[in-house]
Amino acid sequence: MSTENPDGAGEHRPRVERVAVVGTGLVGTSVALALRNRGVDVLLSDPDKASMRMAYDLGAGRPLDDAEEEPPADVAVVAAPPEVVPQVLQELQDRGVAQVYTDVSSVKVRVVEGAEELGCDLATFVPGHPMGGREKHGPGAARADLFLGRAWALCPTGKADPGAIAAVTEIAHLCGADPLVLDAKAHDRAVALVSHAPHVAASTVAARLLNGDEAAMTLAGQGVRDVTRVAAGDPHLWTAILSHNATPVAQVLSEMAEELTATAEALRSVGKTGEAALEPVRDLMERGRSGQARIPGKHGAVQRPAYTVLPVVVPDEPGSLGRLFAAAADAGVNIEDVRIEHTPGLPLGVASLFVLPEAEGSLARALSADGWSVHPGR
Amino acid sequence: MSTENPDGAGEHRPRVERVAVVGTGLVGTSVALALRNRGVDVLLSDPDKASMRMAYDLGAGRPLDDAEEEPPADVAVVAAPPEVVPQVLQELQDRGVAQVYTDVSSVKVRVVEGAEELGCDLATFVPGHPMGGREKHGPGAARADLFLGRAWALCPTGKADPGAIAAVTEIAHLCGADPLVLDAKAHDRAVALVSHAPHVAASTVAARLLNGDEAAMTLAGQGVRDVTRVAAGDPHLWTAILSHNATPVAQVLSEMAEELTATAEALRSVGKTGEAALEPVRDLMERGRSGQARIPGKHGAVQRPAYTVLPVVVPDEPGSLGRLFAAAADAGVNIEDVRIEHTPGLPLGVASLFVLPEAEGSLARALSADGWSVHPGR
Repeated sequence: MSTENPDGAGEHRPRVERVAVVGTGLVGTSVALALRNRGVDVLLSDPDKASMRMAYDLGAGRPLDDAEEEPPADVAVVAAPPEVVPQVLQELQDRGVAQVYTDVSSVKVRVVEGAEELGCDLATFVPGHPMGGREKHGPGAARADLFLGRAWALCPTGKADPGAIAAVTEIAHLCGADPLVLDAKAHDRAVALVSHAPHVAASTVAARLLNGDEAAMTLAGQGVRDVTRVAAGDPHLWTAILSHNATPVAQVLSEMAEELTATAEALRSVGKTGEAALEPVRDLMERGRSGQARIPGKHGAVQRPAYTVLPVVVPDEPGSLGRLFAAAADAGVNIEDVRIEHTPGLPLGVASLFVLPEAEGSLARALSADGWSVHPGR
Repeated sequence: MSTENPDGAGEHRPRVERVAVVGTGLVGTSVALALRNRGVDVLLSDPDKASMRMAYDLGAGRPLDDAEEEPPADVAVVAAPPEVVPQVLQELQDRGVAQVYTDVSSVKVRVVEGAEELGCDLATFVPGHPMGGREKHGPGAARADLFLGRAWALCPTGKADPGAIAAVTEIAHLCGADPLVLDAKAHDRAVALVSHAPHVAASTVAARLLNGDEAAMTLAGQGVRDVTRVAAGDPHLWTAILSHNATPVAQVLSEMAEELTATAEALRSVGKTGEAALEPVRDLMERGRSGQARIPGKHGAVQRPAYTVLPVVVPDEPGSLGRLFAAAADAGVNIEDVRIEHTPGLPLGVASLFVLPEAEGSLARALSADGWSVHPGR
C-alpha cells in the first residue's frame, strides 16, 4: 500500500491494491465484486466451501489459501456475523493476513468490546458498517453496486492508526459509498432507530398475519407487502443482530409499544367520547408523515439505468421462453431482466422483458414479425 | 340491463351498459376509466367541480347531470369517503339514479349500519371494496388498470337482491378484478389486519424518526423506507378510516404492543440471563417470516406451486439467456420463472431458474454437462 494517488491532484488517497475478504455471503461477495471492478486483487475465504466456490465462479476473487506465501494484503474485510467478528479478527491478525482490518457487521459497540477482550490490535482495526443490504442472502444475491451511493459508517476507536482509517475509508470509496465517521455508541443508537427497531416492527406486523384466514390474505396489497418486506430476512442473523444491540433497540421498541397502546385506547374510546378521542390518532398520523419525510431519498448520484418493459404473451409450455430469448438475440437485443406472470387456468403467461429504452422499438418490431403477441407501452 | 351474455356459453353474466360513478377521486375515476375501456356508458358526478372536470377531460365519462331525463343507470358506484357514503346513497336512491348501488370505501360494517339507520334500500345496495390504491390521490392519479388482478371484496347484507349482487360482481369483473364475497364483519377484521393496523405500525416507526439526529438519518436505507412508505398517506383520511374500523384495529394494535413489549424485555435481559433470553426474539423473527410469506404475490390469490430455484452463472451478453433456455428445453425441463441478477461492471450475472422440484436434478446435470456453472442447493 502506498499513499500515491494515481487520480492525481491534492488529495492523498492511500492506494489499496490487495484486499482479503473473509466471508463470502451477500455483503462480503458484494464488497469483493465492487473492488474487483476497480481493479483490486481480491483474496477470498469462507468456511463454507460451496459459498466460496460460487463467489469464485462469479469472479469475486481468488482463494486466500493460495496466497499464503505472498506479502500481507493492504486490508482484510471481515464479512462475518457480528458474534464471530472478534474471533475471526484475532485469527487473521495472528496470521498477519493484512496490514489493516475492518468488518462490515451492523453493530459496533459489542464488536469493539469483543475485540478488546480478545486482545486484538486496535491500532490496525477500524470497524465499519456499509448501509447496503437485501433480504436475499448468499453470494448468488451479491451485487457490485450494493453500496453505490449508500452511507458507509466507520467507527474507529481512539487507538486507531490514522493510516488504517484512511485505508478503510478508501475501501468505502472504492465501493462507491459515502464514508461517515461516527462514534460506535452513536452508530448503534442510530441503527436501532433506522434499521433494527423498524425490522422488529415489520416482524410484529407480519407475525399478526398468521392469524388471518385465506380471505384476509387475499385482501393483502402493496401496503402491507412493503411494511413487512424486511421480515423475510434470516431469523437467525436478525436475532444475533438484535441481541448485539439489545439496549438501544429495546428503548425504541418500548416507545413504539407505548404509542400503539395509546392509539388502541384512543380508538376504543371513539364510541364513547366521540371525535375528540381521535386527537392522539390524528397526531400520530401527522408525526408519522413528518418522520417519514426525514428519510433521505434513494441515495446516490448514480441511478441504475431506467429500463423499458416490453410485455409479451407467451404459451406456458417447455421451450417457449427459449424461443422468445432466441428471437430477442436474433434481433441483437440484450434482455436485462424478465418477470413472468402466469395466467392461472389459461395456457398463457406474460413475459415482461426489461430492455434499454432505445432497444424497445426494434425488439417489438422483430418479435411481432416473428409472430409474438407484443404489448409495448403498457 | 339484461342477463344475456355476448361471450356465449353456460355462464349467465348480467349486461352492465350504463354506470353512474359518484365521486371522481382516485378510485372513482379509475373505476370509470376501466368501465369506459370495456365500452360501458359512464355518468360522472362530484361535488368538487374541478375534480369532475378533470375526470371528464380524461375521458372517464359524461356528466350525470345531463342524463336526468334518461332511464336509471344499471349500477351507481358511490366513490365517496366512508363517513358520507350512507348519506350519498340515500340521496341517489331517493332520486332513482340507478337500479343497483355499491360503494368502494375501505370499511364496511359502519357503512352498512349508517345505510340502515337512514332507511336506505338494502335490497339494491351491495357494499364493495376494491383492493387497489396508491399514495397519490385525485382523478389525475387514476388508472384504468388500478384493479387489474386485485381482489374486490363484496359484502352483501342478507337483504340483498341476487340480481344486485350479480350486477356489482360484473362491475368488479369489468374492472379486471377478482370478486370475493365475504361478511362485512369478516371484511373489517381482515382489513384491520392486512391494511389498517400495518398503517398505524408504519406511522409509529416513522414518528420515532423525529428523534434521530442528522447522522442517524444518513444511515437510513431501503428497509426503513419500505416499512414507513404508507405513513406518507393523508393523515385526515387515515384518521377517518381508522375511526370507522376502530374496534378491530385496536385489537390488532394491542397485540402488536404486547409483542413489542415482550421483545424489549427479552432484549434487556440478554445481558443478565444470556442466550436463553433470546428465544422469544428468535420466535418472533420466525413467525414474522412465516407471516410475511403468506402475503400473496402481486397478482392476487392464486398461489404458485413451490418451485425449486437453480442458480446458474451466465455471461451478460446477447444470446446467453437464449442459449440457457434452449439448453433447459433440450433437457425437457420447463422453466416456470426466472430472476436475473446482474453484476454491474462484470460481464456476468446469475440467472435463478424456478423449476418443479422433481426437475431440478436432471436440469442441473444437463446444464453442467453443457458447460454451465450451476449452483444447486444455494
